[in-house]
Amino acid sequence: MNEAVQKKLCIDPALIRRVLTGFLASETHRIGISKAVIGLSGGIDSALSAFLAAEALGKENVYCVMMPYRTSSPDSLSDAEDVVKKLGVHSEVVEITPMVEPLFEKFPDMNNVRRGNIMARERMIILYDISAREHALVIGTGNKTESLLGYTTIFGDNASAINPVGDLYKTQLRQLAAFMGVPEKIIKKAPSADLWVGQTDEGEMGITYEQADEILYLMIDERRTQEEIAAYGYDMELVKKIRRIVRSNQFKRRPPVIGKISSRTVNIDFRYARDWGS
Amino acid sequence: MNEAVQKKLCIDPALIRRVLTGFLASETHRIGISKAVIGLSGGIDSALSAFLAAEALGKENVYCVMMPYRTSSPDSLSDAEDVVKKLGVHSEVVEITPMVEPLFEKFPDMNNVRRGNIMARERMIILYDISAREHALVIGTGNKTESLLGYTTIFGDNASAINPVGDLYKTQLRQLAAFMGVPEKIIKKAPSADLWVGQTDEGEMGITYEQADEILYLMIDERRTQEEIAAYGYDMELVKKIRRIVRSNQFKRRPPVIGKISSRTVNIDFRYARDWGS
Repeated sequence: MNEAVQKKLCIDPALIRRVLTGFLASETHRIGISKAVIGLSGGIDSALSAFLAAEALGKENVYCVMMPYRTSSPDSLSDAEDVVKKLGVHSEVVEITPMVEPLFEKFPDMNNVRRGNIMARERMIILYDISAREHALVIGTGNKTESLLGYTTIFGDNASAINPVGDLYKTQLRQLAAFMGVPEKIIKKAPSADLWVGQTDEGEMGITYEQADEILYLMIDERRTQEEIAAYGYDMELVKKIRRIVRSNQFKRRPPVIGKISSRTVNIDFRYARDWGS
Repeated sequence: MNEAVQKKLCIDPALIRRVLTGFLASETHRIGISKAVIGLSGGIDSALSAFLAAEALGKENVYCVMMPYRTSSPDSLSDAEDVVKKLGVHSEVVEITPMVEPLFEKFPDMNNVRRGNIMARERMIILYDISAREHALVIGTGNKTESLLGYTTIFGDNASAINPVGDLYKTQLRQLAAFMGVPEKIIKKAPSADLWVGQTDEGEMGITYEQADEILYLMIDERRTQEEIAAYGYDMELVKKIRRIVRSNQFKRRPPVIGKISSRTVNIDFRYARDWGS
């Protein structure tokens, strides 16, 4: 941990809370929708999204969905249930096991990464289906650290209509979560995608969130060169590795690339915001 | 049909073929990948994508996947098999029935639209899983007409890595398909998502592709006002309706909207192309 860089990552939680609840309320209401659907994993990111949504839209308009797999930790479910109880939002449990196992059985050689991606995408299917049933928006829960490092499943957990926490680094998200009253047990536990037993984000990525956030902040937000970042005392090889990871995962943050042949191509020159002129 | 506007929609198929096969080859090879995975529905869009991919990457590098549901038309599968035979590409069949039925049973009140979206997204899961197994890219097959009209499932059939046909209106795509030798039976049959028995695109959308393409071309590519478009002889109410549809489906063409709090937010000010500087 570098004290000077940690200081840059400090947020004003009262201000950010106001900005993000305002964002959720306006982006939802402007298109005539009043409800939100959120997948609760039992982790801090989705818990904070639920806290923000309940405050922005009212607890009666928030539907939390828990989607355990056969091997998911029972603690994950009970931590998610604590969030539901604390907020007083709607909730339901939809097990993904019966939907994903037929594909696991079809391809028995499948490794853990493929299994994890299938599970993340199956959860997207369920959230979008419930959002259609409820005429609600799917609220995203992915943070900036995992988005930049590509520690997400494209069209899975990184799929949503609007995401209130996607511009918060993990360590910043923890500050806001503490400020808003997310249960301490959830804030303190080791972050994990819980896709297989014993998985932790930091173990899999080989770096702590503190260190990743510091380097990413200098690289992305302050646009420092690799030499400038290394001058803060980080290992140059680590800085280079993070840059490579950010770059090679850019495809997960962008819509599909369309072969351009006309004067106005979707997402190239035809990409007005959702407030496309009426 | 308006002859003058149909003329504007005429393409030079030899040129477009060269541009799009070049696009597929360069976008695939530049990231060290040589293979492609395509979901073949039996329809013209995915057939043309397969023809382009086989020419761009070589038939030995193209994996076509047929993913029928219990009620899918057997003709769809046999039309897809004709494409496979004609091109000599790899192929496999993965039925989606065992993966989607548990969710249909969980929510027995589900309407056809919800079912169709689940099926389209399940197919995305399978294509992405096979792409991981083969170290291949998922090739998109959605055309410009359906993208603009939102006649797609977000994170379902509109999810891909690269899409060679996304800038071709349906009527233009037909010209290229004929030029490249896509079987005539596939070109001639009524377009259908085949999500339920008897479904046709034009029946569901309430407009022919010829008419939709003409109005969309004037509106999007030529940026004509509604009055200018109506002056071609189209019903003003229809023109207004199409504009409303394009606008209200903009969300399907854009990545998730992230609440902005920093100086560089994913997809707002941090959105370099995939060739992010090395």
